[in-house]
Amino acid sequence: MSYRTLSEQEAVEYARSIPDLFPQDAQLVSREIGDGNLNFVFRIQDEGPSGRSIIFKQALPYVRVIGDSWPLTLDRARIESEALILENELYPGSVPKVYHHDTELALIVMEDLSEYQIMRKGLVERKRYPNFAKQIGTFLARTLFLTSDLALSPVEKKRKAASFTNPELCNITENFVFTYPFHDDPSNAYNPLLSDTVQRIWKDNVLKLEVARLKEGFMTRGQALLHGDLHTGSIMVTEEDTKIIDPEFAYYGPMGFDIGALIANLLLNYSAHEGHTLEPQEREIYQAYLLDTVVQVWDIFEAEFRNLWAEKAQEPYAKTPGYLDAYLRDVLQDTVGYAGCKMMRRVIGLAHVSDLESIEDPALRAKGEMLALSIGQEFILKRSTIASVNDIIALVTSSTVRQ
Amino acid sequence: MSYRTLSEQEAVEYARSIPDLFPQDAQLVSREIGDGNLNFVFRIQDEGPSGRSIIFKQALPYVRVIGDSWPLTLDRARIESEALILENELYPGSVPKVYHHDTELALIVMEDLSEYQIMRKGLVERKRYPNFAKQIGTFLARTLFLTSDLALSPVEKKRKAASFTNPELCNITENFVFTYPFHDDPSNAYNPLLSDTVQRIWKDNVLKLEVARLKEGFMTRGQALLHGDLHTGSIMVTEEDTKIIDPEFAYYGPMGFDIGALIANLLLNYSAHEGHTLEPQEREIYQAYLLDTVVQVWDIFEAEFRNLWAEKAQEPYAKTPGYLDAYLRDVLQDTVGYAGCKMMRRVIGLAHVSDLESIEDPALRAKGEMLALSIGQEFILKRSTIASVNDIIALVTSSTVRQ
Repeated sequence: MSYRTLSEQEAVEYARSIPDLFPQDAQLVSREIGDGNLNFVFRIQDEGPSGRSIIFKQALPYVRVIGDSWPLTLDRARIESEALILENELYPGSVPKVYHHDTELALIVMEDLSEYQIMRKGLVERKRYPNFAKQIGTFLARTLFLTSDLALSPVEKKRKAASFTNPELCNITENFVFTYPFHDDPSNAYNPLLSDTVQRIWKDNVLKLEVARLKEGFMTRGQALLHGDLHTGSIMVTEEDTKIIDPEFAYYGPMGFDIGALIANLLLNYSAHEGHTLEPQEREIYQAYLLDTVVQVWDIFEAEFRNLWAEKAQEPYAKTPGYLDAYLRDVLQDTVGYAGCKMMRRVIGLAHVSDLESIEDPALRAKGEMLALSIGQEFILKRSTIASVNDIIALVTSSTVRQ
Repeated sequence: MSYRTLSEQEAVEYARSIPDLFPQDAQLVSREIGDGNLNFVFRIQDEGPSGRSIIFKQALPYVRVIGDSWPLTLDRARIESEALILENELYPGSVPKVYHHDTELALIVMEDLSEYQIMRKGLVERKRYPNFAKQIGTFLARTLFLTSDLALSPVEKKRKAASFTNPELCNITENFVFTYPFHDDPSNAYNPLLSDTVQRIWKDNVLKLEVARLKEGFMTRGQALLHGDLHTGSIMVTEEDTKIIDPEFAYYGPMGFDIGALIANLLLNYSAHEGHTLEPQEREIYQAYLLDTVVQVWDIFEAEFRNLWAEKAQEPYAKTPGYLDAYLRDVLQDTVGYAGCKMMRRVIGLAHVSDLESIEDPALRAKGEMLALSIGQEFILKRSTIASVNDIIALVTSSTVRQ
C-alpha cells in the first residue's frame, strides 16, 4: 500500500489484518491520542472480552503542528521502529514492543502503555520513582555501549551508523537546540522578564564558542546509536517500571548527548520547583531527591558501562590501563555540556517544558527559568573541569544558592 | 556486464567502446603497470598518431598481494571514482580526470599521468617541488572544508557521509595504523636492531592510551571527506604540478588524519635521510627543505581554510569570535597526533616505506627508523601542547638533535 494517512476506521481494519494481534471477534474502537507535534497516534482497543489495546503511530510527511509548509521525512518511522526493535534486544522491556511496522505507510503498531504516565507530569507532581535511576542508567549504558565501536565490529558499526542516518531530524536538533536559542532568532519564545539575561547570552561570545563546539560534536561524532531526544516527555513510568518511547531522532552521535538530555530534564524540573513548589522544605526535599536521582543515574550508567567494558569490549585497546577512565571522563564532560545546551534551549527557544510552563505567575516562572539558564551556562562553560558527577551537583547547588 | 576481471585484450575492447576516448583507427596496446597491492592497473596507449594513453584501474574482490584469503569489497572502486570526481570539482586539476567508471566491473578509466613521478621516489632522490606546498595545501583546505558541515547543509553532508561509508577499507587503517603496530602482532615487521625500542613501545601504556583516543577519533569523527591514505606514494608530481591519486580509502573522518598522513610521510623521508644521505651538509640542507615544506603546507592550508571560512561558511556560528582559531587549533593537534601514528606504523607495522627501505645497511636504516619512532612518540604524547606549526618543527628538531 503506498503512503496515505489512515482514518480511524482504516486503522481498525489494518489492525484486524495483522495476524494474532486481536481475537477474531474483537470489538475494536479507535481513538486519536497524539499530543499533536509530529504524528498521528491512535489507541485501538478491544471492547470485547480480551480488553487488549495497542498503539498505532503513523508519521505524516510534514510537521503536524505546523502543517505541510514544513515537510518532514517519513523515513523517521522506519528509524523509530528499527531503534525500538534494537533497544528491546539490547535491554529487553525498556521500550514498547513493536508488533508490526510498515515502511510504506510510515506506521508502527506497538504495545500500549496505558498504565504508565509521562514522567514529566509525574515530576511536576513531585512523584518519586524508586526504580527509575537503575532502569534508565542501565538503558543508557547498554544502548550506548553495545552500539559503539567498543562492542561491535567496526564494519558492523559503520553499517548501522549509515542505516541510522537521520539528517532531517538531526537538523531540527541542530537548529532548535544549538543554534536558534543562542541567537536572536524569530523562532525563540521566552518570558519577557528574562529579556536582559537573554540579550546578554546572545552577546556572550565565550559561551557561543563553546556551544559551537558542542554542536560540531553533535554533528560529527558518531560514537553510538542515540535515542536522540531523551527528555522526560519521552519516558513513561509507573512506580515500578520505566519505558522509553519515541526514538524517531535516533542516529549515531556522541554518547553524552543522550545522558545530557536526561539530566537536563531532571534539572529543568529541579529549577521549576523554585516557582512551582513554594513551601521551602517541600521544595528542598524534592530537589534533593532530583539531585540524588542525577547522581544515581550517572553512577548506575558508569557501573554498568564498566561491567560491559570488562565483559564485552571488542576494542583491542580496552585493556589499556587508564583508557576506560579517560573514556568515561570524556563522556561525562560531554554530558554536562549537552545538558547545558538542552536546559537553555527549553527557556529561550521555541519548545518549552510543562515543568516551567505550569507556573502561571510570570515572576515565579522567571525564578525557575533564571535558575535553569544559570545552571545551563555553568555547565557549558565549566564542563572541561568536571571530573565526577559530584562536580555536577556542586555546580547546580552553587547556582541555586546564588539565585 | 556482471563482475569479472578483464584481460588485457578485453580492457582494450572496453576502451574502444567508450565514445570519444580514442580515435576510430587507434592502435591500442595495453600493459599492466599496477604495483600489485590491491588492484589491476593497465595503461592503454594508442600507438597510432593520437599517441593518447589512459589508465584502466580494476579492483579485485580480494587483496591482490595476499590473494582470495583476504576478500575486499569492490565498492572501493565506486568510492574511488566518486571521490576523484568530487575532488576534481572542488579543486580542478588536482586529481586525474575520470573518463568513465563502471560500478559492476569495479573499473575506473582515467587520465594517464605518465609524465608524473611518484613523489616518494622524488623525495628519496632529494628532488624539490616548488609548487607542491601551495597545491597540496590548497587541495587539503578545499576538499576538507568544502565537504564539511562548515560549508554544506547538514542534510547534504550527512547524505554524502552515508554514501562514502567505507567500512572495509577503514578497517585496514584501524588495524594496520592504529592497532597492530602498538601491540605484539604477528603482522608486524621491523628491523631487528629496533627490538628493545619496539618492546618498550608495546609496554608504554601512556602512549597506547593516546593512540587509543586517536583511533577512536578516526572511527567516530565524521568531519569531512578524507582522501584517507594521503602518503607520498599517493601523490604524483612534476616540478610544476601535483596530482593526488588512489582515494579508495575515502570516508568521512577527522580532517587532521589527511594532513597528518602527508606530514608524516614528509617526516619519514626527513628521518630516512639520516641513513640515506650521509654527507652532513647535503642532508641538513634537504632536511631543512622538508621542514620548510611542512611549514608551508600547513600555512597554505590554514590561509586557504581561513579564506573559505570567510567566503563560504554556512555554519551560523562561523562568525563567532574565536571559533575559527579554536577549530584550526583542534585540527592542528589532530594532525600532529595522526602524523605520529602514521610515522610509527611505517617502522613497526606491516607496510614500510621505500624512503627507509632503500637504506641497505641495517644500522644506518635503524638510525632513520629510530628518529621516525622518536618523532612519532613525541607527536602522539605532546599533541595537546601544540599551538602552531612551529611547535611541530621544534619537536622534530629536538628529536633530531637527541638522536
